[in-house]
Amino acid sequence: MGQKSCAMTSTPPPDATPGEHVAVLGTGLIGTSVAMAAARAGCRVTGWDIDPDTVAHAAARSGLEPRPRLEDAVVDADIVVVATPIAAVAATVTAALLAAPGAIVTDAASVKGHLVTDVLAVMGDDVQATVRYVPGHPMGGSERSGPEHASASVLDGIVWVVTPHPDTDAAHTEALESWIERLGARPVRLTPERHDRLVAMVSHLPQVASTSLMGLAAKEEADEPEILLLAAGGFRDLTRLAASQPALWSEILVANRDQVASAIELFAARLLALRDAIARGDTAEVESLFERSKRARLGLATKPTVRSGVAVWQVEIPDEPGALARITAVLGAGKVNIEDLQIVHSPEGGRGTVHLTVAASSAGSCADVLAGGGYDPIRLA
Amino acid sequence: MGQKSCAMTSTPPPDATPGEHVAVLGTGLIGTSVAMAAARAGCRVTGWDIDPDTVAHAAARSGLEPRPRLEDAVVDADIVVVATPIAAVAATVTAALLAAPGAIVTDAASVKGHLVTDVLAVMGDDVQATVRYVPGHPMGGSERSGPEHASASVLDGIVWVVTPHPDTDAAHTEALESWIERLGARPVRLTPERHDRLVAMVSHLPQVASTSLMGLAAKEEADEPEILLLAAGGFRDLTRLAASQPALWSEILVANRDQVASAIELFAARLLALRDAIARGDTAEVESLFERSKRARLGLATKPTVRSGVAVWQVEIPDEPGALARITAVLGAGKVNIEDLQIVHSPEGGRGTVHLTVAASSAGSCADVLAGGGYDPIRLA
Repeated sequence: MGQKSCAMTSTPPPDATPGEHVAVLGTGLIGTSVAMAAARAGCRVTGWDIDPDTVAHAAARSGLEPRPRLEDAVVDADIVVVATPIAAVAATVTAALLAAPGAIVTDAASVKGHLVTDVLAVMGDDVQATVRYVPGHPMGGSERSGPEHASASVLDGIVWVVTPHPDTDAAHTEALESWIERLGARPVRLTPERHDRLVAMVSHLPQVASTSLMGLAAKEEADEPEILLLAAGGFRDLTRLAASQPALWSEILVANRDQVASAIELFAARLLALRDAIARGDTAEVESLFERSKRARLGLATKPTVRSGVAVWQVEIPDEPGALARITAVLGAGKVNIEDLQIVHSPEGGRGTVHLTVAASSAGSCADVLAGGGYDPIRLA
Repeated sequence: MGQKSCAMTSTPPPDATPGEHVAVLGTGLIGTSVAMAAARAGCRVTGWDIDPDTVAHAAARSGLEPRPRLEDAVVDADIVVVATPIAAVAATVTAALLAAPGAIVTDAASVKGHLVTDVLAVMGDDVQATVRYVPGHPMGGSERSGPEHASASVLDGIVWVVTPHPDTDAAHTEALESWIERLGARPVRLTPERHDRLVAMVSHLPQVASTSLMGLAAKEEADEPEILLLAAGGFRDLTRLAASQPALWSEILVANRDQVASAIELFAARLLALRDAIARGDTAEVESLFERSKRARLGLATKPTVRSGVAVWQVEIPDEPGALARITAVLGAGKVNIEDLQIVHSPEGGRGTVHLTVAASSAGSCADVLAGGGYDPIRLA
């Protein structure tokens, strides 16, 4: 088996092997983005997709070498990344383990436990193969899909969860993590079960809550056409995810059904406990629950999140054409990269306030640049 | 009783009376913003607050004439606007009805039914007074509070709900609505009960859901410190409201307890129905529920919302310093006012895409300006 890490183009590590080779199976947005990040890190990349047009588009965008069959794509590969739709992942992983006897095989599916079970159900006796399967989940993406919207930057700084199963060889896990770092992402190791439990809570449950809230308001609207007139910024924030892809999400939620069902139950129980406190007029208890959540929310941006440490500033701007242009120009001229910018809304609307998120390492220069531009920022986190 | 409408500074209507006079009772952010919008429309404004410092600050910011006592502030007023904290509204409305026998009295409280009941319980026999009480709810605000953050623009284009009770004189309701329009806001008439039911669904329930989700994740974090590592843009969207003011919200929710409890129950029932479909693996049913919510959400921006008609564009931008500066400069130079700008996140992160919201009347010029700047916008709504 060859080296598992790719050379950075600029500073090749001493142990880099020129012939190292990554195969991507499934060249949609994530697969092609992985191909582009790997190429940027100096890897040779081959690719296959069940749809010949898709792999041709991916080749045109990323420079990967297209192959007509899965078996052709994985020949001599050190690392195989399976990035097909979730329903095809287990079979594609299995095929890759068999077709590439030397390679580490990983995948990009957003649910892990069920997948590991499926792969081991077929391959369980073949320990030579299963030790090489290191399941993963790069937590990046885009609202778009398809190779034409891929970019190496999709992976920059994201959390890429690695979920070895009990038979996975530890050296393979470490080699994959090292390669993920070289691609510019941040490996985080969890068991498949913990991964599924945590994403149910912070990714799948928000999706379910958003969709349910939008569905409820839409149903009410049939009888109460004015209802959406009264919907201000808060409602919009809460329902933005409801515009996500139904086919993708129904597949993810059903694949993680036990953990999602459990997260929904915990959430519903919490809602109904709050309802009880409200219904009995217990203002002190309601305020105390809100106070705890507020502290947690304000602390969120100081956590090592997906963007690995951020600072959040609140800045007042005039509500007029050019106001955003001015503040973003001031920051751009000061070389401050804006990680996120939100025009914030109070419980009931309000305009002219933005929340700026920058990397924690830029917090000081951001403050200086804003002050130099005549702004009076308040640091929130 | 004098005229109920104020002259616009630029084009006084023929029936305007120079001496028309608005009194604001409670000069926090909303009260002082009303004072500023009224002054902008040519009204004389007097004000009172239980805290002498607050009314002094309001006077310095807005030019209202401060008065030491409620009774002094309302002398000769045509319209009295009560904008105190919610717990003091009923008593202040009652006092104003008695102290200003010629005036229309309205208020800015965000819950109406309970308040109307309280006022009528005290004043019910005095029909001469109660016909002049026209409850209201200007649905604007800011994350800040206090007169020092007030602005007439807080009211620009917002929905201002007017909720006459059965004894309210129709002519008074119409006069108040006409005055609201002159201030630059948009009057919408509802019964107190419908108002409370609708805001429970689209304002109070989102707050409860956001706080409950954040509370749940914070509790899990004690056992699972990695959980917030996996929290991407969707979780942040859903929990942003959880940073709202606990004292304000506990008061609002308890004041609207019956409607809020009912909205929470409907939401919990909907969540649990979705849980059942997920748990039994009914992908088709889950997808169909998601599809309906997606259609409703995409339609939301095309509704006559708070911002009275908007267009939403999706635009790809590079993830680098200056990228936001460039697009906002292009729009500013093209005189396009950005109503909202969001750096959007997929279910699992993603960067470099913004959603721009502009007034529907600017949709065409926004498209032209973006295309002229080299962008390739996709219209979402």
